[in-house]
Amino acid sequence: MSSPALRQTAVASPDTTSPAGQGPWTLARRTARMNSSVIRDLLKLVDKPGIISLAGGLPSPETFPIEAMREASDRVLRDTPKEALQYGPTEGYAPLREWVAADLAKQGMTVRPDRVLITTGSQQALDLVGKALIDAGSKVAVEQPTYMGALQAFVPFEPVFTSVACDDDGPLAEELGAAAGSRFFYLLPNFQNPSGRCLTEERRAAIAAHAEHHGLPILEDNPYGDLWFDAPPPPALAARWPEGTIYMGSFSKVLAPGLRLGYVVAPNEAVGEKLLQAKQAADLHTPGFNQRLVYEVIRSGFLEQHVPTIRQRYAAHRDAMQASLERHLPAGCHWQKPTGGMFFWVRLPEGVDAMRLLDGALAHGVAFIPGAPFYANDAGQHANTLRLSFVTVSPAQIDKGIAALALALRESLVAA
Amino acid sequence: MSSPALRQTAVASPDTTSPAGQGPWTLARRTARMNSSVIRDLLKLVDKPGIISLAGGLPSPETFPIEAMREASDRVLRDTPKEALQYGPTEGYAPLREWVAADLAKQGMTVRPDRVLITTGSQQALDLVGKALIDAGSKVAVEQPTYMGALQAFVPFEPVFTSVACDDDGPLAEELGAAAGSRFFYLLPNFQNPSGRCLTEERRAAIAAHAEHHGLPILEDNPYGDLWFDAPPPPALAARWPEGTIYMGSFSKVLAPGLRLGYVVAPNEAVGEKLLQAKQAADLHTPGFNQRLVYEVIRSGFLEQHVPTIRQRYAAHRDAMQASLERHLPAGCHWQKPTGGMFFWVRLPEGVDAMRLLDGALAHGVAFIPGAPFYANDAGQHANTLRLSFVTVSPAQIDKGIAALALALRESLVAA
Repeated sequence: MSSPALRQTAVASPDTTSPAGQGPWTLARRTARMNSSVIRDLLKLVDKPGIISLAGGLPSPETFPIEAMREASDRVLRDTPKEALQYGPTEGYAPLREWVAADLAKQGMTVRPDRVLITTGSQQALDLVGKALIDAGSKVAVEQPTYMGALQAFVPFEPVFTSVACDDDGPLAEELGAAAGSRFFYLLPNFQNPSGRCLTEERRAAIAAHAEHHGLPILEDNPYGDLWFDAPPPPALAARWPEGTIYMGSFSKVLAPGLRLGYVVAPNEAVGEKLLQAKQAADLHTPGFNQRLVYEVIRSGFLEQHVPTIRQRYAAHRDAMQASLERHLPAGCHWQKPTGGMFFWVRLPEGVDAMRLLDGALAHGVAFIPGAPFYANDAGQHANTLRLSFVTVSPAQIDKGIAALALALRESLVAA
Repeated sequence: MSSPALRQTAVASPDTTSPAGQGPWTLARRTARMNSSVIRDLLKLVDKPGIISLAGGLPSPETFPIEAMREASDRVLRDTPKEALQYGPTEGYAPLREWVAADLAKQGMTVRPDRVLITTGSQQALDLVGKALIDAGSKVAVEQPTYMGALQAFVPFEPVFTSVACDDDGPLAEELGAAAGSRFFYLLPNFQNPSGRCLTEERRAAIAAHAEHHGLPILEDNPYGDLWFDAPPPPALAARWPEGTIYMGSFSKVLAPGLRLGYVVAPNEAVGEKLLQAKQAADLHTPGFNQRLVYEVIRSGFLEQHVPTIRQRYAAHRDAMQASLERHLPAGCHWQKPTGGMFFWVRLPEGVDAMRLLDGALAHGVAFIPGAPFYANDAGQHANTLRLSFVTVSPAQIDKGIAALALALRESLVAA
């Protein structure tokens, strides 16, 4: 099977002048760098009967609280239907903003509700931040690897990406000086997509201190923080340097992504005002019905019962994948056992190209996501990395899938 | 009552270098031109008990099909809950895209479903088009007056607006030469917000012909087309010059705006691909639950029964406002009786400043929207215009409100 979509990446296109559109249309220059997500293109290719997909970034639909959603939907459409179906404030539904602000105390943050902007998924927060903070040619610092959807969101604003050197515990604080002058440093401290890593207390303290020292603002993205398996992660960077950090959160992983509900917390009024204006221009407001629906579900402590069931499920899957990786993968493969989230990140023996390995893996009936597209810079040096999701496939299928991956890998090592 | 928000407009700010953010933050240059919507700021000021508001741009919540929504929500959460709550395709829910493509036949259009992109309200389509087609300094042609939310959506991409001269029937086709070289000409042919005007068959034919002659692409925005009172409007511009027209539609006015559901139809594959990539970067996809909910409501012909009830209601309100305007307004005021939509557009006697008139009107208990902010250029020459919504207030209240407006106007004329 050929996978042409993989030959291009979302960020590696040359920044040339724009191609002309067809007919009377002229495309904006920024479109020359815009591309479809490699992951989404890939998922279309691999989402076939018979393929065990460890490729997706989707939460398990088994965790969706359907009954609670049904009851909440009934209540909203019975008690406040006209309000829920009418235009609403750009800032978001006030009780939901208050809930978010109060909930962030568990991350060590003290947040005023009027600093919370409800967004159409946290992906939209990335777009709004890009619009408010990135000029063509601005430096933007990212982790390596980093979340590909963020690169996609920022690229239309034509930044120059700087990758901060990382080890298994995340970004190296002492390397932040090289990123000074960037509009912000984007990072995912908890169970990062794709690497699964979680920053230690010490690393967080060091990053916050160095970032503040260099005047390097932080964009902290935290969709996975609630999905810890052993202990909650240390307090947020936004708790350590509130005036220097934009914080983003999401309901996609603890409730359901199909409602598209996230939020962003502004570090000060000036930035908050521009995010709000960008939001108003982008879609006026996030669907009021969805905001009320989620608020009805969570207002009385539902997540305190619900999220532990997700943790338990995902932890069992994590254990299954860990055992399968130990059982099947040949020597020379390296990975960390993630302490939360949805992903394993595997470094294959030097010289193995995960992009090429994918064809063999698909032939054996398993799909994964090659790691290179998650690098904003020097992707070629990381061709031997891949991401595995452990949450949507049963433990039995995980084992079958990892065995197939190992088989493809052995064949590839023999051929090399 | 003072209304400071009115002293600024969404588009009139100087294009200076960006102000520094607070602390370590640097705002993007584009933010210097971004502002909050004058209308939204105003609505916060006038939405007070005792004020009859003819200011809003909201559809009447009496038209929301709550029972149909409730049944559809039950069906979606019973039959396909996991699909509705999971991540979905960026393009949108396939059956909804097919429905939209088929429905556009009534506008005289022949549309392939794969050219339809579902958006988070049609406001998002404006943002995506801006991102895909506008470079800093690009010319963008608009009507005068034009929809303020479109100016807000385009401004972050730093265009230079050209206003096409208009008469009571809309843009003058022979003036389109002056807009040649623009990335597109944005217009609302049916019951425009704010002017209420609807383009005649002759005017449409002339605009399509001149636009094609000048190679000037068209962005056709049609949120109000279904709200005709006497006869359906003539076929869309997109039916006349398909390869030169991007078409936008919305479910906000025929179902409910709080679900945030709109769509955009691409004129060719190249533009469609860039809109899709922009959409993916902006919010991954529009909430799948909302898409399925709306599809469940409309799939079996619901709108054929429902929309006529909206038309009937709005037409009665239109008649009431027409009668009240004739009864109360002093000589020297001019307006057209709209044949659909939600708005009257009134030109006051020369020299009256509607912005100033608003303070007096509020003192007498009525609110409206001054017309100047709807002009991208030469707003000062149109200070004597205002917009009145007739759909959310009862006929009795409309009469009281127009009487109060007339009183404030007479006082202002005496004072001048």
